[in-house]
Amino acid sequence: MTGTRTPDVLAGIDVGGSKIAVVLADTDLRPLDRHVIPTGAGDAGYAVDRIAHALEAALEQAGRATADLCAIGVGVPGRVEPGQGTVTLAVNLGWHDLPLGPRLAARFRVPVAIENDVRAAAAGLHARRATGDDADLAYLGIGTGISAGVVIDGVLHRGSRGLAGEIGHVVLEPDGPRCACGLRGCFEAFASGRGIGELAQAAVDAGEATSLPTDRPCTAVDVYRQAARGDAVSRRIVEAAGRYVARAIHELVMTYDVRRVVLGGGVTHAGTPFLDPVTRALDGLRAMSELAREALPPDVVHLLPPDADAGGWGGVILARSAARRTASADAGQAASVGPAAREVTAS
Amino acid sequence: MTGTRTPDVLAGIDVGGSKIAVVLADTDLRPLDRHVIPTGAGDAGYAVDRIAHALEAALEQAGRATADLCAIGVGVPGRVEPGQGTVTLAVNLGWHDLPLGPRLAARFRVPVAIENDVRAAAAGLHARRATGDDADLAYLGIGTGISAGVVIDGVLHRGSRGLAGEIGHVVLEPDGPRCACGLRGCFEAFASGRGIGELAQAAVDAGEATSLPTDRPCTAVDVYRQAARGDAVSRRIVEAAGRYVARAIHELVMTYDVRRVVLGGGVTHAGTPFLDPVTRALDGLRAMSELAREALPPDVVHLLPPDADAGGWGGVILARSAARRTASADAGQAASVGPAAREVTAS
Repeated sequence: MTGTRTPDVLAGIDVGGSKIAVVLADTDLRPLDRHVIPTGAGDAGYAVDRIAHALEAALEQAGRATADLCAIGVGVPGRVEPGQGTVTLAVNLGWHDLPLGPRLAARFRVPVAIENDVRAAAAGLHARRATGDDADLAYLGIGTGISAGVVIDGVLHRGSRGLAGEIGHVVLEPDGPRCACGLRGCFEAFASGRGIGELAQAAVDAGEATSLPTDRPCTAVDVYRQAARGDAVSRRIVEAAGRYVARAIHELVMTYDVRRVVLGGGVTHAGTPFLDPVTRALDGLRAMSELAREALPPDVVHLLPPDADAGGWGGVILARSAARRTASADAGQAASVGPAAREVTAS
Repeated sequence: MTGTRTPDVLAGIDVGGSKIAVVLADTDLRPLDRHVIPTGAGDAGYAVDRIAHALEAALEQAGRATADLCAIGVGVPGRVEPGQGTVTLAVNLGWHDLPLGPRLAARFRVPVAIENDVRAAAAGLHARRATGDDADLAYLGIGTGISAGVVIDGVLHRGSRGLAGEIGHVVLEPDGPRCACGLRGCFEAFASGRGIGELAQAAVDAGEATSLPTDRPCTAVDVYRQAARGDAVSRRIVEAAGRYVARAIHELVMTYDVRRVVLGGGVTHAGTPFLDPVTRALDGLRAMSELAREALPPDVVHLLPPDADAGGWGGVILARSAARRTASADAGQAASVGPAAREVTAS
């Protein structure tokens, strides 16, 4: 009971290809502040500086200091080694074997946990009971790429090599378009932001009659917007994407038997134009099969609002786990980085 | 240290549509005996008698008595409620809400554990280290139907409704043939024993030139046999089935990130004619994608020999778990039936 304030700020950081979002919360998970900056372009060292800068700006905006930090959790779009706090490979960021955890730990002198962004979001959604008291939950992140984070019996599932939930590269059409991974007809090639943009671009390039832009590369935002306005090419792409998303939801449910699939990520921010084709396709499966009706109850899908900050809050939950681990471990260590997977969703 | 012998026999029972297989082992998992009888046709009460009869015959054959039994584990092709020991629905056996566990427990006065047959086999393969020290493992059972049993971090995964691993009903071709579940183009419709038989029958009925039998319904055994002899229709069906099995293996790996997929079940007993098309299709995926090469290392697939008795041994492992649970619970209870899922693979 001296005059020293106990650190009480958890920082969750969601690193994306275009922006870095910081969510600050207290140890009771009450939101303190939110701050977003562009990721910017540069090497990995520069990126670590940008992340640190975003965190410092968020603290300042919240009227807090670095000394108030308990722990940091970072979600990264790529493969990570949580035990070492290393980002093994983040293709869209150009990172390879980056010791992000140790670097941030050295800079801020607090425990740092690193996890794949979609997996972190899943852990955060579960820990914050975003869908109620579900013990199991899958989060399907549909952005530039696609992957799923899955919580089973309250535990985040990483798999034997950290590949668990990489269903963006499950093949849905063996003769389909080539995916970035090399295979043909992956789920990602039809329903991710990149996939949808490329399918639209191919239609434009083929001279199809469409209201899609012809003076710049098509994006998924263009496609959903033009689909809502009745453009036939866009509607075709959007309907197909909805069917593939429905198949992926069905696949997640039949494989993991999760009771709930939460949808989030940039593509889902289109809202109703995104969700309606998915719902229609799920209804089609339900109409055909009693087993599908049981597996896909009406509330199986939970669409996150665009401002849900699932990634940032996932980082907060990672930070909370890291802080607890450190508190229960040797008090002599100033900062540590440890595996987050097993404990991350324990509340 | 009286003259009374301590019960030391674990009974694993694999109930199939055509046969009931009993494996007896001692508590150190040394095999004692194996006995198989036809399932026979009759109502559920008759079936319980048949199972009891098979077990008694196995004990007699091994020179053992009912008093030597520690516990019984039963794998059933269908949905079960392990907590109650009830078979909720076993379509191929015609069982519905059958309290199989309590009935066998009342008859033999020992603990009885009930589980889905493929899931029991997965637990058994893991507990007996059939593929080494893998913490994670998927068992893909390809018989009349198809489903997977998955062990994650040493724990059998059941899912929120006991549907986990029902990948036989993942849709691979939305315009494909109708599956027994009502959907079109399920994995099962292309690669299960029933699916392969029906595809062959359709070719015969369409008058295609083939050496498949025309005087009786085609079976998967016929198809693999004729494929090995060069029959074009059979080869087409078998090659396609191999591609679908490869896709399912890839899907299991990308979803669960298991390091190993064990293949078993009646269809796999065809051996090389079954496995070769699967291997070719996996090689095709590997050739296209670095990610696929990593996800599908050369030893990812483990084909069980036809005499592996994975189901019976799965029952033995269930029985061991049930015996341990009872031993650690109130010693006053003569017999109990309890949930097997979480502890079943602990060794």
